[in-house]
Amino acid sequence: MMSSRKLLASELGWSAEQRRFVGTARVASLGTASAAARPHVVPICFVLSANTLYSVIDSKPKRLAAENLRRLRNIVENSQVAVLVDRYSEDWERLAYVLLRGRASLAHAGEARRAIRLLRQKYSQYRRMPLTGRPIIKILLTSAYAWGAF
Amino acid sequence: MMSSRKLLASELGWSAEQRRFVGTARVASLGTASAAARPHVVPICFVLSANTLYSVIDSKPKRLAAENLRRLRNIVENSQVAVLVDRYSEDWERLAYVLLRGRASLAHAGEARRAIRLLRQKYSQYRRMPLTGRPIIKILLTSAYAWGAF
Repeated sequence: MMSSRKLLASELGWSAEQRRFVGTARVASLGTASAAARPHVVPICFVLSANTLYSVIDSKPKRLAAENLRRLRNIVENSQVAVLVDRYSEDWERLAYVLLRGRASLAHAGEARRAIRLLRQKYSQYRRMPLTGRPIIKILLTSAYAWGAF
Repeated sequence: MMSSRKLLASELGWSAEQRRFVGTARVASLGTASAAARPHVVPICFVLSANTLYSVIDSKPKRLAAENLRRLRNIVENSQVAVLVDRYSEDWERLAYVLLRGRASLAHAGEARRAIRLLRQKYSQYRRMPLTGRPIIKILLTSAYAWGAF
């Protein structure tokens, strides 16, 4: 289990540049696993606040499919998650990624409202989307690993 | 365990367009999990051949870090993997992804040589990189799930 003490940014072991790389990324890949260790990966929009990531289960175009909700079921079964922020380039000298690890849970009322505000600051697309009452995934980051051109 | 029978393309349940989306993608996110269900995600270059994905543990710039090899350890412990191919766009009507599931293992000699040929056809970057003897991850796809604008 994770300690409830908040980690300082520096304790995550990433540089200011790596933190900016994550904070400004528009999309990440959220890796979860069922209790039976079956992995699952979905793209997420997210916002970084101190050492916490927030992501909302929104109603993006098309449909909110059952498959898309597996992340929630996995998080209930197993709070360990991995979040990948990746930069691909045809110039492989410029490849870079940051892999974050953390513990996921659902944010409660007050924190969820704050997360929605932050998500709307970052993504103008969310400003015209009803988000109140939608599940907000909260990820307390426990480690950051960076690779490549920083 | 997976049956050794090969799935026909149509049995994976994806359209020609979704298959092309995956086949032409330059990068994907490989999700693995340890036996203890700890998830891990890394970006991979890969090639799609029939219903098999191949990816090489190469020596891209910088270093081949221990962290980067966790995918191999996880695959030995737990062959279940997920592969995400994602298209992000600021126009959220254009968002799309395909989530593939499969069983991973290491390719053996003859198959590994063929995989290297295919990877070099797809990625010119690999043509000037020594790959012989590098571990080749082989993923037999068992399902495809597509979401978004196809």
